[in-house]
Amino acid sequence: MNYAVIGTGAIGGFYGVLLQHAGFNVHFLLHNDFEQVKTKGLKVESVDKGDISLSNVNPYSRVQDMPYCDVVIVSLKTYHNELLKDLIPEICKDDTIVILLQNGLGMEAELRELLPKNIIIGGMCFICSNKVGPGHIKHLDYGSVTLGEYAGETQAAGITRNLEKVVAEFKTAGIDAQMSENLMKSRWIKLMWNMPFNGLSVVLRATTDEIMGNPYTRELAESIMREVNTAAAYCGITIEEEVVDTLLDVTSKMVSYNPSMKLDFEKSSPLETQYIYWNPLNSAYSAGYEMTASKTLARELEFLNQ
Amino acid sequence: MNYAVIGTGAIGGFYGVLLQHAGFNVHFLLHNDFEQVKTKGLKVESVDKGDISLSNVNPYSRVQDMPYCDVVIVSLKTYHNELLKDLIPEICKDDTIVILLQNGLGMEAELRELLPKNIIIGGMCFICSNKVGPGHIKHLDYGSVTLGEYAGETQAAGITRNLEKVVAEFKTAGIDAQMSENLMKSRWIKLMWNMPFNGLSVVLRATTDEIMGNPYTRELAESIMREVNTAAAYCGITIEEEVVDTLLDVTSKMVSYNPSMKLDFEKSSPLETQYIYWNPLNSAYSAGYEMTASKTLARELEFLNQ
Repeated sequence: MNYAVIGTGAIGGFYGVLLQHAGFNVHFLLHNDFEQVKTKGLKVESVDKGDISLSNVNPYSRVQDMPYCDVVIVSLKTYHNELLKDLIPEICKDDTIVILLQNGLGMEAELRELLPKNIIIGGMCFICSNKVGPGHIKHLDYGSVTLGEYAGETQAAGITRNLEKVVAEFKTAGIDAQMSENLMKSRWIKLMWNMPFNGLSVVLRATTDEIMGNPYTRELAESIMREVNTAAAYCGITIEEEVVDTLLDVTSKMVSYNPSMKLDFEKSSPLETQYIYWNPLNSAYSAGYEMTASKTLARELEFLNQ
Repeated sequence: MNYAVIGTGAIGGFYGVLLQHAGFNVHFLLHNDFEQVKTKGLKVESVDKGDISLSNVNPYSRVQDMPYCDVVIVSLKTYHNELLKDLIPEICKDDTIVILLQNGLGMEAELRELLPKNIIIGGMCFICSNKVGPGHIKHLDYGSVTLGEYAGETQAAGITRNLEKVVAEFKTAGIDAQMSENLMKSRWIKLMWNMPFNGLSVVLRATTDEIMGNPYTRELAESIMREVNTAAAYCGITIEEEVVDTLLDVTSKMVSYNPSMKLDFEKSSPLETQYIYWNPLNSAYSAGYEMTASKTLARELEFLNQ
């Protein structure tokens, strides 16, 4: 299959380079870095895969110049998702698979309006990588991605043939790709981690181990996790209570970690509040549940987001 | 009446100097500033009362050296209130009136255990003043104090003779003193302001006008106010809903203001979280109400309090 990467940054650049390096035909859409990548290519310095320099890549500054692709990987920050209505139709055929490597809730539902019939796959990355220069990505830790096919906000698609096909190609490229038979459950579990730790790391200028190391904020993180769990249940997604303990346990054993929102904040980039906070908050509210602690945090984040 | 001031700082120093300047006999307990005040006296530079320098004051470094007083003004930061069990018995007679010029909830109840029969008066200061050097207080704005007699956590004492006597003497000294017939209601109304604005000003490093100027934090402040209002009702104190709007209106018309907790935070002093947050949170919880937004803020503050 041939691939498009929409948003060639820390995430899309990393996975796209691995795919091309494995022999796949990849087309990269770039904005600021276009000229540099056109002349110098793309480079990944990876903690576990070594240095990969691709001098010969297919860079594009305009989506109109790109070919139709079999798989489109969307790795924009979600605050740019309003661009998708202009980008997606230019590169998607009827049978194009779109993979959203993004954080939060509601991206797939919005894309479904744009593409009523295409296969949509959601992806949750567990990776620590940064763009350190134009076309230059540093991969620091982790790297796995969990993919699941979208079948609506409460339905589980199961393990589909298309999902298996994509995951197989990702694995060929050396990517630690996992399958989820229930994308929305995976999305909500990711939110159980993102909603406490992304927000608190920004508001308190803290790393995950600092948050876990203080009894008050450890309790706060746990109570926000339980709030997200309850919200998911109101929205028709059942997540076992023990997942909270597992996530806390994993987090307390992780190295000192800066969540993506903290990195954005430190770069004075916008924060992904709409998809990580307001979409789940609004979904839960519509279903009859008020996420008071999460909403408090979201409102504080909006103050800092200005 | 003769007065003792326990805690000769921005608050106690200001009101104590005004009382002595008006001719009252005032005894000042000091800690770090004792030697300086002994030789150089006390000085207030006031926005509306001009400069008042008292070269001849009664300073004490040990409460054991102080005389029994008719009125004891306690203006310690509440995180030092555990000292009161040692200080209070040394200067209180059976008919001594103790005035607590402090913020939060639960100070009077604790003092009642120490002094089962004395008159206890609670005071809420609306003042902007700072200690700028040893024995040197700068009064920047406002200056009123509302006093009410304590009659238990839910009872209103009404306007008592002792309250009238103290307020009359304060007024003689040029202090804008008001009477509250219901101390606990006044305390909870003050909390309705303190719980949103003290905490948010610290967590967001913001002034009151910045908090009010952002729609998200303005809504957050309002929702915390309504939470405090509900908590008060659970604790047996009815506060009219319109007080929320009045407080928001007053705050939006105030000049850019740094709440006391923000000033403490900027000085790396401890934060008064126990009395301003945990005591009302715990009282409400015991009465069957969970103050979720306020608790979120309190937990964040404890992280920053370390």
